[in-house]
Amino acid sequence: MSAITLHYFDGYGRAESIRMMFHHHGTHFTDHRIQSSEWPPLQSSGLCEFSELPVLECDGLRMSQTRSISRYVAQKLGYGTSNHYDEYLVESICDLRSEILQYFLKLLLKKDLVTYDKEINSSMVEWLQLIEARLVKNNGGNGWFVGNKITRADFEIFESIYDFMIRDDFGNKYSHLIATHAPKLNSFMSRFRESSHSFSNYMNNRPKSSFQA
Amino acid sequence: MSAITLHYFDGYGRAESIRMMFHHHGTHFTDHRIQSSEWPPLQSSGLCEFSELPVLECDGLRMSQTRSISRYVAQKLGYGTSNHYDEYLVESICDLRSEILQYFLKLLLKKDLVTYDKEINSSMVEWLQLIEARLVKNNGGNGWFVGNKITRADFEIFESIYDFMIRDDFGNKYSHLIATHAPKLNSFMSRFRESSHSFSNYMNNRPKSSFQA
Repeated sequence: MSAITLHYFDGYGRAESIRMMFHHHGTHFTDHRIQSSEWPPLQSSGLCEFSELPVLECDGLRMSQTRSISRYVAQKLGYGTSNHYDEYLVESICDLRSEILQYFLKLLLKKDLVTYDKEINSSMVEWLQLIEARLVKNNGGNGWFVGNKITRADFEIFESIYDFMIRDDFGNKYSHLIATHAPKLNSFMSRFRESSHSFSNYMNNRPKSSFQA
Repeated sequence: MSAITLHYFDGYGRAESIRMMFHHHGTHFTDHRIQSSEWPPLQSSGLCEFSELPVLECDGLRMSQTRSISRYVAQKLGYGTSNHYDEYLVESICDLRSEILQYFLKLLLKKDLVTYDKEINSSMVEWLQLIEARLVKNNGGNGWFVGNKITRADFEIFESIYDFMIRDDFGNKYSHLIATHAPKLNSFMSRFRESSHSFSNYMNNRPKSSFQA
């Protein structure tokens, strides 16, 4: 790939799983973190086809829509799939992840931490069980989500579980839910974090999310 | 394909663009339209991996998640793409369509037709302009959304514009918005409707949506 720039707010939100793919692969990119004061002029600058972030500039192209960017990057970096059914398996996990993201990101952005806490303990537990069930179907849950190599599905699940339940801001408050309700997923989280040296480095040193989301 | 069954409620909603692909292609499928009384037992029957509809049974597989099903069907029927960038173009249009669907389907399901009307005249007009701009970038807007053949993007846009703005239930109330704000899209709608004999037959005779959505 030629020069790559990912434009997004200075938070995790919709861009973090894309950043993770670049770091996991060890591909250099410019992580343009937009502060809220920069956003209004940028929004009207024509950078964003659909008036939204993230936007990716890559291969001389400018791309919008989180999921489409994520899929493109996955294919470029070798985290894609090789047949239609495996692609279905990846995509359906990513669809589920979109639902989770939408649900919890909204609560974090509203800073409604009371509802957040309640919902992590109820809705998220149900989602954990669905995710666990899917994981177990592939290699007994001892590998990755689809096939025998890392795909976009692994990034998307890792990122949402990590950033909604595990990261330091939550002070170890929710980790036990994963261990209790999704033990195979719990092991997956550690295995995935250590699956690339550059990725575990990133996870140890990544910038904090300025808007907690 | 072997026997195919699409399970969804007796409405358009999330399944209609998938039905449209089968009809356009002329591929026989069982259109299992679930009445609301049937749903609770079906939901707990194990049919739906993520407790949601639609579910597709096809090729000896059982699949969940609207977008993943739609992508799989498109690839099977020849409405897929042949390179990563074209795939990005299709997917980003489908992402936009998901936002539109989510926004307006909710209002129809709540039967909040006052807000629906207001939002069709404001938010939808902005979306129409974005869609028009994208359409015009390919062959001057005189063909399809991506490349030189029909892809999933065409189905998803056709279905949402048709079912949220054109179908009989709205009594020609919104059609002028398309003609005014998105003239190329307006022509696309007629062109697409006539692009397959079996599809135009379906459009002339398809079942009404029992829950108006």
